[in-house]
Amino acid sequence: MPRLRDLGIVPGSLPSGPLNAITDVAGVAVGHCTVIEGDGAWRGNGPFRTGVTLVLPHRGNLFEDKVAGAVHRINGFGKYAGFEQIRETGCIESPIALTSTLNVPRVADALITLAIEQTPYIGHGPDATGRQGYASVNAVVGECTDSFLNDVHSRRIGEAEVRAALAAASEGAVPEGSVGGGTGMSGFEWKAGIGTASRRVPEGQGDFTVGVLVQTNFGRAPELTVCGVPVGRHIRPPNARAEDDRGSIVMIAATDAPLDGRQLERLCHRAAFGLARTGSTCHSGSGDIAIGFSTTYRVPECPDSVVMQRATLANEHWVLSVLGTALIEAVEEAIHNSLFMAETMVGRDGNTRHGLPVEEVVRLLRDHGLSGR
Amino acid sequence: MPRLRDLGIVPGSLPSGPLNAITDVAGVAVGHCTVIEGDGAWRGNGPFRTGVTLVLPHRGNLFEDKVAGAVHRINGFGKYAGFEQIRETGCIESPIALTSTLNVPRVADALITLAIEQTPYIGHGPDATGRQGYASVNAVVGECTDSFLNDVHSRRIGEAEVRAALAAASEGAVPEGSVGGGTGMSGFEWKAGIGTASRRVPEGQGDFTVGVLVQTNFGRAPELTVCGVPVGRHIRPPNARAEDDRGSIVMIAATDAPLDGRQLERLCHRAAFGLARTGSTCHSGSGDIAIGFSTTYRVPECPDSVVMQRATLANEHWVLSVLGTALIEAVEEAIHNSLFMAETMVGRDGNTRHGLPVEEVVRLLRDHGLSGR
Amino acid sequence: MPRLRDLGIVPGSLPSGPLNAITDVAGVAVGHCTVIEGDGAWRGNGPFRTGVTLVLPHRGNLFEDKVAGAVHRINGFGKYAGFEQIRETGCIESPIALTSTLNVPRVADALITLAIEQTPYIGHGPDATGRQGYASVNAVVGECTDSFLNDVHSRRIGEAEVRAALAAASEGAVPEGSVGGGTGMSGFEWKAGIGTASRRVPEGQGDFTVGVLVQTNFGRAPELTVCGVPVGRHIRPPNARAEDDRGSIVMIAATDAPLDGRQLERLCHRAAFGLARTGSTCHSGSGDIAIGFSTTYRVPECPDSVVMQRATLANEHWVLSVLGTALIEAVEEAIHNSLFMAETMVGRDGNTRHGLPVEEVVRLLRDHGLSGR
Amino acid sequence: MPRLRDLGIVPGSLPSGPLNAITDVAGVAVGHCTVIEGDGAWRGNGPFRTGVTLVLPHRGNLFEDKVAGAVHRINGFGKYAGFEQIRETGCIESPIALTSTLNVPRVADALITLAIEQTPYIGHGPDATGRQGYASVNAVVGECTDSFLNDVHSRRIGEAEVRAALAAASEGAVPEGSVGGGTGMSGFEWKAGIGTASRRVPEGQGDFTVGVLVQTNFGRAPELTVCGVPVGRHIRPPNARAEDDRGSIVMIAATDAPLDGRQLERLCHRAAFGLARTGSTCHSGSGDIAIGFSTTYRVPECPDSVVMQRATLANEHWVLSVLGTALIEAVEEAIHNSLFMAETMVGRDGNTRHGLPVEEVVRLLRDHGLSGR
Repeated sequence: MPRLRDLGIVPGSLPSGPLNAITDVAGVAVGHCTVIEGDGAWRGNGPFRTGVTLVLPHRGNLFEDKVAGAVHRINGFGKYAGFEQIRETGCIESPIALTSTLNVPRVADALITLAIEQTPYIGHGPDATGRQGYASVNAVVGECTDSFLNDVHSRRIGEAEVRAALAAASEGAVPEGSVGGGTGMSGFEWKAGIGTASRRVPEGQGDFTVGVLVQTNFGRAPELTVCGVPVGRHIRPPNARAEDDRGSIVMIAATDAPLDGRQLERLCHRAAFGLARTGSTCHSGSGDIAIGFSTTYRVPECPDSVVMQRATLANEHWVLSVLGTALIEAVEEAIHNSLFMAETMVGRDGNTRHGLPVEEVVRLLRDHGLSGR
Repeated sequence: MPRLRDLGIVPGSLPSGPLNAITDVAGVAVGHCTVIEGDGAWRGNGPFRTGVTLVLPHRGNLFEDKVAGAVHRINGFGKYAGFEQIRETGCIESPIALTSTLNVPRVADALITLAIEQTPYIGHGPDATGRQGYASVNAVVGECTDSFLNDVHSRRIGEAEVRAALAAASEGAVPEGSVGGGTGMSGFEWKAGIGTASRRVPEGQGDFTVGVLVQTNFGRAPELTVCGVPVGRHIRPPNARAEDDRGSIVMIAATDAPLDGRQLERLCHRAAFGLARTGSTCHSGSGDIAIGFSTTYRVPECPDSVVMQRATLANEHWVLSVLGTALIEAVEEAIHNSLFMAETMVGRDGNTRHGLPVEEVVRLLRDHGLSGR
Repeated sequence: MPRLRDLGIVPGSLPSGPLNAITDVAGVAVGHCTVIEGDGAWRGNGPFRTGVTLVLPHRGNLFEDKVAGAVHRINGFGKYAGFEQIRETGCIESPIALTSTLNVPRVADALITLAIEQTPYIGHGPDATGRQGYASVNAVVGECTDSFLNDVHSRRIGEAEVRAALAAASEGAVPEGSVGGGTGMSGFEWKAGIGTASRRVPEGQGDFTVGVLVQTNFGRAPELTVCGVPVGRHIRPPNARAEDDRGSIVMIAATDAPLDGRQLERLCHRAAFGLARTGSTCHSGSGDIAIGFSTTYRVPECPDSVVMQRATLANEHWVLSVLGTALIEAVEEAIHNSLFMAETMVGRDGNTRHGLPVEEVVRLLRDHGLSGR
Repeated sequence: MPRLRDLGIVPGSLPSGPLNAITDVAGVAVGHCTVIEGDGAWRGNGPFRTGVTLVLPHRGNLFEDKVAGAVHRINGFGKYAGFEQIRETGCIESPIALTSTLNVPRVADALITLAIEQTPYIGHGPDATGRQGYASVNAVVGECTDSFLNDVHSRRIGEAEVRAALAAASEGAVPEGSVGGGTGMSGFEWKAGIGTASRRVPEGQGDFTVGVLVQTNFGRAPELTVCGVPVGRHIRPPNARAEDDRGSIVMIAATDAPLDGRQLERLCHRAAFGLARTGSTCHSGSGDIAIGFSTTYRVPECPDSVVMQRATLANEHWVLSVLGTALIEAVEEAIHNSLFMAETMVGRDGNTRHGLPVEEVVRLLRDHGLSGR
């Protein structure tokens, strides 16, 4: 499957990074674990079309060397883990996992297990003299519901799958489409999944990168819009259903600009603008969420002083405007990649999500004046 | 000047109300006061290209018969009046005024004067026996900065202008473009101002109306998008400037659906999706705000019981999804009306904002497959 | 162990309900599962001093017949489950569980299992025709860290313990102290745990009840204050440590007043005022949270109309002031009950939390003019 | 009138600064303008018992050299100016004014006039070439309603009074009681007004100062609590009225610790804990608000680089816990100073607010074991 850009369709105006992926932000790694098991009718334990994706802000010890972080709720109909503490402290101290809704607790539990392995004093209370510190860890998990194709009851993803995603984590090119947390997801009633993209801000404006990774699971077929062209008015899957109006998306934004939690939250507000460009109307019974982090604004768990010097934006409004445009373009392209890279899948009870007919879509875009290669 | 719809360009899919205006929501009235005075160089008191617009949720006593209300901050770089109490109480108890940024306090002061005239016990404290109640009133004012064309220092709008806008208030068709609070505003570096639109939700889905009125003052020329067509890539004003990246918008949404404050806030979240469709990237040094109210969910100042029965949505998610689509389409069309209905204006220091070349834009839209009449 | 009130010490002025417990709000039930296992040094799997407490807003199907709900973050340093959706939708659709921090995911997972058993269509996606609905469920879990006495690494609480707490749930008197989620908790460096209390609002002011249940785990010894008397200046545990400044509390408020989500959030804001009366200074590295619900403001999952009539407060400010006082008094007394009802406990690694020396405290209070029976 | 501390009553445990005032934070200045005019019946223009107080984070150009700032809404029933932008940008760029509710717009307008005088490019738009920047300024005003003693209709405070308060601003001792914005205010149905206090954090914990200034206007007589002693159960003014349950407070916190906007908001959350210690139950129809700023975390309007190094807390949780205790103690003492320093006042229509009978209160406190000098 080709990515949108490989078809000559390039949303926006800013250049992408070399991988056109969230991993263009130095140090960020992504790993997937994909579970495709069984066929036919649901019988209480499968078939499964599901998985988990991990986004690592860096490969070190995230608990001891936290990154500035933020969450922004566009529509909070979701069962996320870890958001309250991110809002309070402005930082993220665990990998960010994406998975199926009802699987959030099992994935959060696995992240805790992994954190304790890496940092044994987590969860270990003070001794009788009180001298020994104790700590807990804030696991972060986003979710969408893959129930059209997947047996969600059985909550198939656990510690083994989270370990597999971590083992697969790479700072290189990111597999897209029906992989990891995106395995069983849908978009505009087509098959969708994981997508990623990036944008670079010109040197004169800070020389920063913004990378985005999305788990797409929203939209009715008539709404699909690509680069302004109302594709969904012309091309729909054979099994589109007017009344199917639920769905959700998690958008993860990474940047190497030294934004703090408040500034990252401002950046995350712009995610809705990229989402809207794809035709989303933010259905009410869904969860649309953005999570942001900065790889260069770090917060130590065990600081050795009361006050420290830290790099921060001097000209917030000007930089955030440019980063905001970068984010919007990357969100738009990442969502499209999550569609274009996903092939037709048959899931539980024979339910089918058709892959977007890429050639047909490209032809339509060209008819509307968008030049291909 | 023609409205977008009169040119055969109709964003979205839902039908508009008869006026395609916020006044399609029964009982809502709008009044403008427009101030265009003086020419030439700024000499400390003019020239003026400014004004004030009032949106009245109903024509009765708003203090004694409040409406459910909400505000949503997309980007809170602005100097609004009255937002804190709306968030706390979930209701609006004054007309909503739109004006020039530095003029907000004078307009709020005028709204207080008018409220006291209508409800004399406002501001009147208890007597020595404590028997007499006292009350204050929460004036609501939104703003954008019209400083390119207008002398904003002088804060030209006061009680006389607010009274004039109130006297002009009508439940009929709404003047658009360079009127009222929109007189000196710009959009995508073209002349802009006030715009309005409405959408009707089908009877089977509640038989509700959503109306929108915007005061547009945002955007760089290359960003302008109409019905998905990147107009700004092809058509720009002669004095477009790449670095001019500030700007703001206030979007007011009215509905006759019985939404409470929390539900209205959810609805207002969708305003960003309509705004994004016009090409906005939500520049950081600006204020992008949505204010919503329901005309049918009323809150009495002096209730005669502790508990009352009140109509409310039974099926929030389903109705909000439909109302959200209505809102998004109405915001998009209202913004375009605010551009299409505004003619070239020369303001202070000879600064000029050109009116959008409507014929040229329509030709471009038709070239992209959008059919005209 | 006696409750505070049985010692003749009665905080506040409003009368309590017959049980002086959250279960004075009709229909509310509470169940505990307490785990006390092992002794001596931590060897990787125990000793355990932990548990889980369930608060059920009603005994019916909470998913299909939700209650209005709210959360309020005083200090959001915590790993709660379910808060995002409560904020968005203003309702609660699962029992509210209280447990040990790192155990939150396992308890949330168990709540999902129970919800699916009761409502089989949860998690079951649409069939190939799309006709069948699907749904997920929002499990709500609050937490404090019991690591001084308990092996928290091992996350001892799972489905069996949640089932046991549910089986034990009763609408009668509520066991307090070292039970359920409070088993291993501390307060002001004394042994603490679960506490509860209630207040009744006079008939003329609505005839409502407010009930509170807390899981206490905060405070340094010198801060303890009872009915205004600085007990902690005079009486401290033998192993108090000045530098031990972490800790947290979850306060659950129930009422039969018909408050919606926004109004419940306003009520929850007052919880900080009751907490402050006990001497809390809201340490930063802790989580202080209030969760509120109304048993009489219900939200159906499957409504049979678009609009419905629903009881709501007509005179919000007046009623909330009275309910707020009731809440503040109930929080204060519930916290004290959580201390007075907890006996000395020896936990992992021989760590000891001493029970408050009740007689000594009562003597001190009487010396300060507080009359006993 | 003596301050609480001069009577030997010292709330809390941390030492105060040399002035025991917000001006103990280096660079902070406070100025009052007090208006006491006329007597007898209200006849449409007086009698007046009102004023305005300015708190200046520093004496330089606040617009060009902003301070980090935050607001926290405990109860948002109020008509504040400037809060939205503080939340968005995390900084404060004008003096903070305190005045009478309906006078907020006129005071905000005066602050704009003063800002333009100091920084002429505020409000001045770009020229025809677009080269010249433009800007607006965010005036910050807090309020309570002094309508028991004052004619609030007439909004007596304008530019002249704001200029007078600015001219009177001093970095020295701060006049308290019935001065400035506190002139006509009440507390626990006694005469109240402005109060201030400060606390110092030990050198080993950062060597920081927290200063607080409050405008008190809340509380029913029976609620008054001083150092834990329920004074209001024993001592009440002759004209106390059970049903008088409205009221409000604005609490301004200054610190020289380098907190950013998010951290200041966390600090402001602790203000409720100091307020609660005085007996407040946070009545619903009132506004209880905290505003915080750091004098050492500065934000330039015109930065000369994209990224800068800035001092920030390395160990947020530890420092915020100590600063939080300092804030709580300073709020408590500032509120008491606002009562103890205010003498009996007769206002409009002969309404009388009695001054707290200080000797009687001190005697009661001593009876409860609080030692005097």
